[in-house]
Amino acid sequence: MDLEKVFHMKGGRGETSYSENSSLQKKAADKVNHITVEAIKEMFLESKPMSLCIADLGCSSGPNSLSNIKELVNAIERESRKLFERAPEFRVYLNDLPTNDFNTIFQALPDLYRELKKGRNHGSPSIYIAGYPGTFYGRLFPDKCLHFIYSSNSLHWLSRVPPGIYNEQGDSTNRKSIYISENSPPKVAQAYFEQFKQDFSLFLQSRSDEVVVGGRMVLILLGRNGPNYVDRGTAFLWEILYRSLAILVSKVRC
Amino acid sequence: MDLEKVFHMKGGRGETSYSENSSLQKKAADKVNHITVEAIKEMFLESKPMSLCIADLGCSSGPNSLSNIKELVNAIERESRKLFERAPEFRVYLNDLPTNDFNTIFQALPDLYRELKKGRNHGSPSIYIAGYPGTFYGRLFPDKCLHFIYSSNSLHWLSRVPPGIYNEQGDSTNRKSIYISENSPPKVAQAYFEQFKQDFSLFLQSRSDEVVVGGRMVLILLGRNGPNYVDRGTAFLWEILYRSLAILVSKVRC
Repeated sequence: MDLEKVFHMKGGRGETSYSENSSLQKKAADKVNHITVEAIKEMFLESKPMSLCIADLGCSSGPNSLSNIKELVNAIERESRKLFERAPEFRVYLNDLPTNDFNTIFQALPDLYRELKKGRNHGSPSIYIAGYPGTFYGRLFPDKCLHFIYSSNSLHWLSRVPPGIYNEQGDSTNRKSIYISENSPPKVAQAYFEQFKQDFSLFLQSRSDEVVVGGRMVLILLGRNGPNYVDRGTAFLWEILYRSLAILVSKVRC
Repeated sequence: MDLEKVFHMKGGRGETSYSENSSLQKKAADKVNHITVEAIKEMFLESKPMSLCIADLGCSSGPNSLSNIKELVNAIERESRKLFERAPEFRVYLNDLPTNDFNTIFQALPDLYRELKKGRNHGSPSIYIAGYPGTFYGRLFPDKCLHFIYSSNSLHWLSRVPPGIYNEQGDSTNRKSIYISENSPPKVAQAYFEQFKQDFSLFLQSRSDEVVVGGRMVLILLGRNGPNYVDRGTAFLWEILYRSLAILVSKVRC
């Protein structure tokens, strides 16, 4: 299965859409908001670009991405005001896989632009927002163009099901489970780890070609507290999902 | 009515979508294809940018936009080969209003990238495609970044219904018609002309901030042969549309 072509959060703005069900993701991003803002400020004060380029990798289609962009633009504007300088031009690149619902996010842009204009007597900042569809496990942007790379709640999604979980017959060795559970053999955890290493290396390698000297990167992704790969904190939701899927499959009459 | 928020071609790939009903637009673009290719080649040979930026304004969601991009990239690659040089990096900006169906166009990108790779022994060109939603009657892109601006079958769409067609009571003086017909008073034609002048000036002014020195622009839009604003060639389709709408309205029971 080509994940790049099919994987996406649920689009639109309906009751079951990602847009209406991403407060958990917002909470995680809010928790480290001070780090994010500090990082972009630091970069700005060091290099003072005339045109500042921000990329949000795995933006999805909810309100989180745009509220985050607003926050970053506001922070840089505040710094510019303190220095009695004009704010830079902002280039914002929103990235997700090609099947992401970019339409919903694009339709919210006129309101964002209007909001950014509000309460600004001396004109609003020049801000140009673009969608860049594609996998971040590979090149996405031109050479040396990004000043600030941001990715929240995305990098724990691997590029594919780790091939190491299959035996020679092509069957999963993970005892029908869909995640690293207490019953998974150690080989399964190792296979996920190998896939993550490979994906994350490719991610860093790609970004290193795209980021300018002095650029910054803030990555927010799920982790766990201890060395034990079976972690209640992160595995809890997977277990519910696994059980629901198992019940669904058991009801299929062939 | 805020046209920027509602105006768009019919999305998706269904029977009645723009994607499946835009062969007429393709024909018009094909007719001047040699001019388009010549213009980008000329620009390339004069300035030889390392990173070449192409913008398609009013890209819509059909196959025309991507086939046009492919054509332009191929032309520059051919020129580079002739010079025994490496092709530049391509940045492609696809623009249309925020309600355009960008999802459909983005989902076709993996196939385009695959096609561009085909038959190239020495690696495919680096090409980064982005969607820039917004009205081209205003700024869309950062300062001085575009090398080649292309717009096909889009610029005859005005930014709004010309206010000059309304009388002091706010009623249309165009005798219920939706275009400049034989029955329209001269004031109506004048109102459309004024709106076009205003829109087109804003278009040119905006692009002049965005284009690099030595950049080129190819604009394809509907025109007419003579000075008479009632032109059978362009008015024919509007008349059919007007009559269909009039019949539809007459059937509404209040």
